[in-house]
Amino acid sequence: MSIIKQKTDQAINILKEQNVDVWLTYVRKTSEIHDPALYFLLEDSWLTWQSALIISKDGQKVAICGRYDAQNIEKSGIYDRVIGYDDSIKEPLLNVLNELKPQSIAINYSEDNIAADGLTHGMWLRLNKILEGSIFLDRLISSEKLLAALRGRKTDSEIDRIKKAVVISEEGHKKVTETIKVGVSEENIEEMLLKFTKDEGVTVSYPPLIHVGPTTTIGHGKASPDIKVKRGDLINVDYGVFFEGYASDLQRMNYVLGEDEDVPPKEVIRAFETVVKAITASAEALRPGVQGWEIDIIARNIVTDAGYTEFMHALGHQIGRNVHDGGCLLGPRWEKYGESPFYYVEKGQAFTLELHVYVEDHGYCSIEEDVLVTEDGCEFLSKRQLELLLLKL
Amino acid sequence: MSIIKQKTDQAINILKEQNVDVWLTYVRKTSEIHDPALYFLLEDSWLTWQSALIISKDGQKVAICGRYDAQNIEKSGIYDRVIGYDDSIKEPLLNVLNELKPQSIAINYSEDNIAADGLTHGMWLRLNKILEGSIFLDRLISSEKLLAALRGRKTDSEIDRIKKAVVISEEGHKKVTETIKVGVSEENIEEMLLKFTKDEGVTVSYPPLIHVGPTTTIGHGKASPDIKVKRGDLINVDYGVFFEGYASDLQRMNYVLGEDEDVPPKEVIRAFETVVKAITASAEALRPGVQGWEIDIIARNIVTDAGYTEFMHALGHQIGRNVHDGGCLLGPRWEKYGESPFYYVEKGQAFTLELHVYVEDHGYCSIEEDVLVTEDGCEFLSKRQLELLLLKL
Repeated sequence: MSIIKQKTDQAINILKEQNVDVWLTYVRKTSEIHDPALYFLLEDSWLTWQSALIISKDGQKVAICGRYDAQNIEKSGIYDRVIGYDDSIKEPLLNVLNELKPQSIAINYSEDNIAADGLTHGMWLRLNKILEGSIFLDRLISSEKLLAALRGRKTDSEIDRIKKAVVISEEGHKKVTETIKVGVSEENIEEMLLKFTKDEGVTVSYPPLIHVGPTTTIGHGKASPDIKVKRGDLINVDYGVFFEGYASDLQRMNYVLGEDEDVPPKEVIRAFETVVKAITASAEALRPGVQGWEIDIIARNIVTDAGYTEFMHALGHQIGRNVHDGGCLLGPRWEKYGESPFYYVEKGQAFTLELHVYVEDHGYCSIEEDVLVTEDGCEFLSKRQLELLLLKL
Repeated sequence: MSIIKQKTDQAINILKEQNVDVWLTYVRKTSEIHDPALYFLLEDSWLTWQSALIISKDGQKVAICGRYDAQNIEKSGIYDRVIGYDDSIKEPLLNVLNELKPQSIAINYSEDNIAADGLTHGMWLRLNKILEGSIFLDRLISSEKLLAALRGRKTDSEIDRIKKAVVISEEGHKKVTETIKVGVSEENIEEMLLKFTKDEGVTVSYPPLIHVGPTTTIGHGKASPDIKVKRGDLINVDYGVFFEGYASDLQRMNYVLGEDEDVPPKEVIRAFETVVKAITASAEALRPGVQGWEIDIIARNIVTDAGYTEFMHALGHQIGRNVHDGGCLLGPRWEKYGESPFYYVEKGQAFTLELHVYVEDHGYCSIEEDVLVTEDGCEFLSKRQLELLLLKL
């Protein structure tokens, strides 16, 4: 069964569970602006004119689209009915709604859940005009809870793809460790990883981030051609891929021993162990029913209790059809994260666990693992990094 | 000078011309949902947290973004000021607005212009919350006119790229003509074009559309493995590419002569000539200052006056950073096209001219050319197809 078939069936179940009558995805020109909900609603095809993809609690799947797009949608076999139109979507859309008579219509907008915010403001205005004078105008609600559940609860096929993406990332990280030589630049490592990715026939889930030594730019800065590996450097690489549309996201740490060193300096070891400890403690607490921020704060407190500066990002985001999947976030209760840290963790969600501390004179020390929430806890999708990879060059 | 520098400078001039004080592009997680305005505002980089790209009539360019994205934006050299933040965009955004004191703030939403409708409804709600209680809340306007001008008026570098994209499409079409044999399927032709595209190091601007003979599916249907070339078939291919981000879009017609034929049947010739005549007449009328629908109706009348069924799409869309660029459309005044056929044509806009008629027993007869609006008319960017390509197989 195709993933789209699985996910649209899953959507019907979630509509029942949340007691929402209809889920309406209203889009146009999806090659120009792509509502992320479409990943779960359409096989590989584009919609040109205004289109409505409708799934109802009672199990109906209806697509309304421009006449030239209708055949592709029909061929996919996902929709029970495909209605092609020529000049205006208004009439066919109102007809279907009048037939379904929904008390609630979930549409894709959300202040906090980016992945549930695919409806543009212009399309929202259009939808309001279409519904003006009908009984449906004040029945519109946000699909954020529906989409959080749909994106969060991975089917087995989705988990398989994420696992394969994780394995490819791990191989890429292994190649980084093999490639590192004194004098190799951040940019060299990035280029190697991009070539590896291409050779594997996949794409990166995010541009790889390479952090070499104490002078690196932390964050999403581009890999530098001028910052080169030297002894005493901590080397962090953040690298994930999409395998058949599903993402992995992993960070690994290497340390280049000094000429007279057999083990890293104490402060490097302490930093690495603090990061590992924070991931262990937060993973032990991660289970269905907790709120996102409750997991984040465990790791955050371990870091600050150890005297390090707090990391200024969330501990964990979901992975799936995007590298930062929406819904529940294992993050602090900061304004910019809105409601997402208050969502409850559910079985079947895949999260990253990632955090860093900084070590003066050595560099950025950060690990990122991928985990899957199970019935009563979580399991690691990645082989955990528990030891700092030591390089004697 | 980079195209982004050119386009952001051009935006300042358009703000002056339209007397709009500030253009505000408010986005987040641009890898998940990509406001098409970003093509003109950012070099190749992504924004993760809520970000504001601000261009003012008095010539200032300011970027506000999450701290981890700031360095990439700084490096691009486009923005005079890059403000990185940690926990909320609200304060830095209000500070910049309070400093600029705009009477009008153009934001990216539009009912009709898809390419100016990149602001999601959730982000619109967020922006309203940020501005609540400030003097700016009722100063928000749509950027549709600004973006229509910015996307429409091509700079020389943009025209160069479109021209190169047109040349590559023409080569692809030539290969189609060389490849056609009796028994070759629609899918074979599509695969050949996709391989050609890859070998050229470019991407398609739209999945190629292949229409072979009278049994083809017209429109955006997938190429069929079962519909194969036979004598007497009209063969239409719609194929465009992106060259360095800029699109071409061209259709060409082949006809497979029957064993005893030296020329196509009269009804095929008449159909082809009607299409050519409609393109010629509309191109002759296309010039700055006319409204889009006035050009569309010329071609439409030629088709219906000749006794053919009216084509159910617009005569011409703009090409540029997308294959269907927003703003002025050479289209009929149908509800679904909203205001776009009422926009005035401007110098520097690149349009397609495309239409079809159907020939019983032979197939779909459609040509598409690409033109550039000049000071007082238009010039063809493509080498026009004035003769039906005849194949004796």
